[in-house]
Amino acid sequence: MPTINENFLKMEKNYLFINIAKKIKAYSDANPEKAKNIIRMGIGDVTLPIAKCVIDAMKKGADEMSVKETFKGYEDSGAGYEFLREAVSDYYKSFGVDVLADDIRINDGAKADCGNIVDIFGDDNTVLITDPAYPVYVDTNLMNGRKVIFADSNEENGFAAMPDQNVHADLIYLCSPNNPTGSVYTKDQLKVWIDYALKNNAIIIYDAAYEAFITENDIPRSIYEINGSKKCAIEMCSLSKTAGFTGMRCGYTVVPRELVVKASDGTEVSISQLWGRRQGSKFNGVSYPVQCAAAAVFTKEGLREIKQNIQYYQENARIISGVLNELGIKYTGGKNSPYIWLKCPNNIGSWEFFDKLLEEANVVGTPGAGFGKNGEGWFRLTAFGDRDKTIEAMERFKKII
Amino acid sequence: MPTINENFLKMEKNYLFINIAKKIKAYSDANPEKAKNIIRMGIGDVTLPIAKCVIDAMKKGADEMSVKETFKGYEDSGAGYEFLREAVSDYYKSFGVDVLADDIRINDGAKADCGNIVDIFGDDNTVLITDPAYPVYVDTNLMNGRKVIFADSNEENGFAAMPDQNVHADLIYLCSPNNPTGSVYTKDQLKVWIDYALKNNAIIIYDAAYEAFITENDIPRSIYEINGSKKCAIEMCSLSKTAGFTGMRCGYTVVPRELVVKASDGTEVSISQLWGRRQGSKFNGVSYPVQCAAAAVFTKEGLREIKQNIQYYQENARIISGVLNELGIKYTGGKNSPYIWLKCPNNIGSWEFFDKLLEEANVVGTPGAGFGKNGEGWFRLTAFGDRDKTIEAMERFKKII
Repeated sequence: MPTINENFLKMEKNYLFINIAKKIKAYSDANPEKAKNIIRMGIGDVTLPIAKCVIDAMKKGADEMSVKETFKGYEDSGAGYEFLREAVSDYYKSFGVDVLADDIRINDGAKADCGNIVDIFGDDNTVLITDPAYPVYVDTNLMNGRKVIFADSNEENGFAAMPDQNVHADLIYLCSPNNPTGSVYTKDQLKVWIDYALKNNAIIIYDAAYEAFITENDIPRSIYEINGSKKCAIEMCSLSKTAGFTGMRCGYTVVPRELVVKASDGTEVSISQLWGRRQGSKFNGVSYPVQCAAAAVFTKEGLREIKQNIQYYQENARIISGVLNELGIKYTGGKNSPYIWLKCPNNIGSWEFFDKLLEEANVVGTPGAGFGKNGEGWFRLTAFGDRDKTIEAMERFKKII
Repeated sequence: MPTINENFLKMEKNYLFINIAKKIKAYSDANPEKAKNIIRMGIGDVTLPIAKCVIDAMKKGADEMSVKETFKGYEDSGAGYEFLREAVSDYYKSFGVDVLADDIRINDGAKADCGNIVDIFGDDNTVLITDPAYPVYVDTNLMNGRKVIFADSNEENGFAAMPDQNVHADLIYLCSPNNPTGSVYTKDQLKVWIDYALKNNAIIIYDAAYEAFITENDIPRSIYEINGSKKCAIEMCSLSKTAGFTGMRCGYTVVPRELVVKASDGTEVSISQLWGRRQGSKFNGVSYPVQCAAAAVFTKEGLREIKQNIQYYQENARIISGVLNELGIKYTGGKNSPYIWLKCPNNIGSWEFFDKLLEEANVVGTPGAGFGKNGEGWFRLTAFGDRDKTIEAMERFKKII
């Protein structure tokens, strides 16, 4: 009989958001009338439709697939078409960051790469993850039985954990603007992390999925804005939140050619080459019409259209923050992030507040405890909703506090 | 410093088809004029455009993404929309196989699932793979350091390896119609494999990617045509070859709910649940417009249109086979498969024949040795090309033999 990977048995049975979906379903089944009024501010999913020029590009790509002369089969490399890798590289240039198109691989969303990248590392590495964190960082390392340690993000440090110089780590996960807390690292703070990584010969896996929500000029949008980062950091980004691609599925991962480690026999190994080998055997690239759509995001018109959507969500965030200010509830995020991370009123627990909000206000959020121990007592709301529903949800919120 | 997964260092540096691409590039750079005449019958990529009704469905799906009321964000489960899982289930029914929609997960191509499925199994399993085989089976298990043993497919058994009852295996990879040899298993032969799997408490990973090319009625199109298979087999299939989706990226994996193994503490574990957990943390579903396109493949019109394409390729296969018959060259495949697996003339090696064919005829095929030791001295040609080019390639082939 095949043995299973028993690390799975040590994990939560379900992914966080599947548990939440089950709770909502149970409530809805028991309260079918109230269920109609539920407003979802839990899962970080966008609601605005995709920009017209992006859809037009997808349809043009689809049409090319229906004509023999322009039909596209397998991509040679599976790393993404050059037109899209160049567009991403140019996008980086637009905020002053130099990333070579050849160091970018296109993927079907950051979650996949974030989970799959661990395939190329040994199971004996110590993995440092800020807590609270996007559950994928933890789960995908536990699946391989790696030792996971945490850096505490908490009220005291504004939910922006810094490294403990007395603790060693080999792989480090950072996310800024942060999911779930909405906090951001300044350039100086990121520099401390990079110096720590270089000192420990560690690799940072940097999740920049929310960079498009940064409003303050001095907050870095890419880890590559910081000196030394190309020798120690992989960056992952996604069009999910930037351009409403949660249902379209496209993102990108940067593995700089400077990133080199030593194998046990002392030979130098290129991380980019290992990653390419992994992807070569387990991935066949992103759908061509999706890549056409993604490239359109980075055109002048695309960037203009997505900016409008982002501003719409940012206004939602201001509405949510406004109500919390009014109620005197502590929170982080909302300013450079679509997430608002609030302290549960009256010191109640995260899941308790989840139930209260669902049952009394028919509003769904995400319990902070689902993101790690430092999330207990905290709660995440997203600004990705419809304007009217966001206003309505916060009115109801006010009433039950 | 992070340790790397050193299993990667034991593998071929590049995926087979990347090596071939490099060889072609080197030849083309050195012979730019001749390069213009190269006819590619190497990589198993389709050339006919995608059926019109399929593209129309994709464009309709894209349009839905541009309207707020019909916009689709994250899929709740990431397992695929019900409309597509039901369509796949109905497709199975059309050839008499009962597969529940809930046991089907939609993916972005069979290669990904084929590689990723191993995440849920222990590294201590013994993996049995027929040789020659699609390199992904071997590579993705070597990446986890699993012991891989082989069942020989060779001229004597018509390149349809059968199990050695004296050898134990935990995981078994079968592919029929076979890539690369084009050979097929009969129902009786598959029954022997299933009995062997049940006796060994092993799980078969069955690759049915080429089922649409089966012309003979008594050849099984799914392993689930055979009694007992739901207790021991996972089936993977793809629209890549069925409907020209190599650049669209969509496939499906069936994990029957009957598939249960025991953990080391004796508790029963559902393979489907483990796989769902893996996918929940590392995959976010397939692009919505791609799923719309895929569902259109299984409509009456879709099936009619793709049948025409498959018949076109089958005629190519007859043309290739005809020339080989004429030349008295031994081969398998071509009848229930788009692949023709031929014995290299004059007993020369696979790579030697690759070079000869490339240099003297400007025709690219795939050296059998790239698929395993039993492939040495054999060579794969695909019927996925353009009709005129296929005829021209076989004319040139004739001249150099």
